[in-house]
Amino acid sequence: MALVKAAAISGFPEWSPRVRLAELRLTDLVRRQYDLYGFAPIETPAVERMEVLTAKGGIQRQIFTVGRPGDDDGEAADLGLHFDLTVPLARYVVQHAAELVFPFRRQQIQKVWRGERAQRGRFREFTQCDIDIVGSGHLDPVHDAEVLPVINSVFDAMDIPGFEIRVSNRKILGAVFADAPGTAADALRAVDRLGRSDPEALNGALEQLGADKEQIDAVVALTATESVDQARRVLSGFPQAARGLAELDAVVHGAIQLGLPEDRLRTDFSIARGLDYYTGTVCETFITGHEDWGSVCSGGRYDDLASFFTNRSYPGVGVSIGLSRLVDLLIRGEYLPASAATPAVVLVATQDRDEYLHGYLGLARTLRTAGIPTEVFLQPAPLRDQISYASAQGIPVAVIAGRREFDDDTAIVRDLRHHVQQLVTGDDIVRHVRGLLVP
Amino acid sequence: MALVKAAAISGFPEWSPRVRLAELRLTDLVRRQYDLYGFAPIETPAVERMEVLTAKGGIQRQIFTVGRPGDDDGEAADLGLHFDLTVPLARYVVQHAAELVFPFRRQQIQKVWRGERAQRGRFREFTQCDIDIVGSGHLDPVHDAEVLPVINSVFDAMDIPGFEIRVSNRKILGAVFADAPGTAADALRAVDRLGRSDPEALNGALEQLGADKEQIDAVVALTATESVDQARRVLSGFPQAARGLAELDAVVHGAIQLGLPEDRLRTDFSIARGLDYYTGTVCETFITGHEDWGSVCSGGRYDDLASFFTNRSYPGVGVSIGLSRLVDLLIRGEYLPASAATPAVVLVATQDRDEYLHGYLGLARTLRTAGIPTEVFLQPAPLRDQISYASAQGIPVAVIAGRREFDDDTAIVRDLRHHVQQLVTGDDIVRHVRGLLVP
Repeated sequence: MALVKAAAISGFPEWSPRVRLAELRLTDLVRRQYDLYGFAPIETPAVERMEVLTAKGGIQRQIFTVGRPGDDDGEAADLGLHFDLTVPLARYVVQHAAELVFPFRRQQIQKVWRGERAQRGRFREFTQCDIDIVGSGHLDPVHDAEVLPVINSVFDAMDIPGFEIRVSNRKILGAVFADAPGTAADALRAVDRLGRSDPEALNGALEQLGADKEQIDAVVALTATESVDQARRVLSGFPQAARGLAELDAVVHGAIQLGLPEDRLRTDFSIARGLDYYTGTVCETFITGHEDWGSVCSGGRYDDLASFFTNRSYPGVGVSIGLSRLVDLLIRGEYLPASAATPAVVLVATQDRDEYLHGYLGLARTLRTAGIPTEVFLQPAPLRDQISYASAQGIPVAVIAGRREFDDDTAIVRDLRHHVQQLVTGDDIVRHVRGLLVP
Repeated sequence: MALVKAAAISGFPEWSPRVRLAELRLTDLVRRQYDLYGFAPIETPAVERMEVLTAKGGIQRQIFTVGRPGDDDGEAADLGLHFDLTVPLARYVVQHAAELVFPFRRQQIQKVWRGERAQRGRFREFTQCDIDIVGSGHLDPVHDAEVLPVINSVFDAMDIPGFEIRVSNRKILGAVFADAPGTAADALRAVDRLGRSDPEALNGALEQLGADKEQIDAVVALTATESVDQARRVLSGFPQAARGLAELDAVVHGAIQLGLPEDRLRTDFSIARGLDYYTGTVCETFITGHEDWGSVCSGGRYDDLASFFTNRSYPGVGVSIGLSRLVDLLIRGEYLPASAATPAVVLVATQDRDEYLHGYLGLARTLRTAGIPTEVFLQPAPLRDQISYASAQGIPVAVIAGRREFDDDTAIVRDLRHHVQQLVTGDDIVRHVRGLLVP
């Protein structure tokens, strides 16, 4: 029989158990914070009808298509894999509007697929962690401010050097191009790409887009500006910018009032989210000292989530964490230790398995009942090999017992990291193991 | 603009937040038990090369194909969505063999896709929860027994009336057809379908397959048999059955020694797993009083997991829970209450939001820091509407405060289920809310 090659598909990450365990810790942490703020979890199918996926236009060439199997009895619609969680949310909200309570606060942690060119940190399959607050007809502006402290809580719970949430409002840059709405989108993208890092290139790019000198000067000055008051002066020639500036001011003050520490938040007018459909507040999050990683959590306000499904308006605000990329970055940066290859933290080693199996299993049951993940080494092997196995797997504690220990209702608890061990009585095993496991 | 219809795709389940929360509780419970037994988590891409998916033959017509997007720069291989987690495991083990420690104990909880005809309880997208123990070259038979107590622990942790694990060994029925291996697979399928429920139909089906009277009598008698000793007598004319009977005996005794209560385990020679690739031990799990639901957790032993990828043998044993179907069944059976539409268990109601926002957020922060998921009602609304919102969402507790309470550093804690409330001091809020939340 010809063998099939066992190989990965480029751009589809697949991790060792060590990294997967680290990823699960991070996913649990994100979900825990989303839970604490009362965001209701939903899941939507990986597969959507193509007309749903392409309704808001744009990235059709990045969508993986899905073909139905031969014996299909279903509808004839074209299908594709969802490329984000926002389009599915829009469909979900419209489809289930009658059963939902608005404002609908939802969290969604799921895989998405994008046919982007595979490159470092760009996956074709990756997990997104989204929260959104969606109103029916109306959504109080206080919710723009509300999502920012959630980002703060999520990243605060991670073991990273620090982070900063940068916030702006798309109406501000939009107002500079109010008389040339066709240019506005391209200008936003140019600002997004060149930001404050290269004023000269930004100048050139805007020139090429046909912007006039007043516009170019305003945008370049704006990207170097760090406060709403300064921005008001810079944009004094663009009265339509007042609304965006007022909204941004309210979001900044609201977020601080809502508990976001001031030093975690910065107004940054170069934040534009050029490729997205935001209409007001926009934000990005950077890890201190790793600004070159790019934003690790982004989002904003959109006036109308579901305009391609319904004439009713569903304004919303939300943020999204690209979890797979974040895991990749945090592991490279050594902020997310991938230390163990198994959830087990205790190995019950066995000697004379057949004689004392009951005893070993009794030990394992005691530990598991106490909530301590435990593996029993069930294959016949010398104790030395069993301890090597535990060390190789990153299991920190071994419980060892033989005739003498079972006769005395004791066991040896060995700390494999510090190479120390202690004989403890049966009643004392859980307490002793717990003591070793506390960091 | 023409509107796109927001509608579901048949066979792709999509649940309300209430059901999704219940599903997450169940998923967490399964994962927790898999963790306690030390199964290492992995994930594999949803997408595999078609030659990988079809290598072991069989259900090609059930595979959803995946087409690459237009701007793809990748390999030209055909792709498809994985239809189970065993084929991906085989590829993973062969591809990463050098980095894995064997026996490799892995858990994998992921979506799979099958183009089956949509019908009640049969989804085209569903979550499977698999554990497998895979050896390299050899796998001690003790692991066949080891997975059964894990099933026991998982279902024991659920709120169901009871359950029974039924176990057999495919070598036993195989031995009856040792001289006609072509018939064996069909006979296994007939036994699987008709089991012990309809001996006459089974008789007829086997006759049609060309089985002789001795074979038919043996199979029909066997499916009515409930112990290995009885089976030995029934199969005295088929000496090759001895090996399968001995293996089954060892698995039953081993599982009981490993802590599986005797009344949870039954030998059942009608368990054949006709459509699977098992070569020895096979098992199914039934919920007491709901045997008509079919098996909710099945698995078995395979001598060679990855024969289509490598000449090295990787024997394994594992079980799989079809989680989406189980959630559907448990909710219909009212064993998995879908009571709340949000993870929040406390609503902090607001009156005069602008004046006291700081106080409301302080209350929320205190509760969240104590690990209590809390939502703050941020939109201006009468208290009555806020309480209705909490009740509609299934939030059991409301914390209410106004000028008087803030002046006295107190708050009203209202139990919305029992319509009682109490004024408590700020220091006492966490303790009081926790008291209400304990079942």
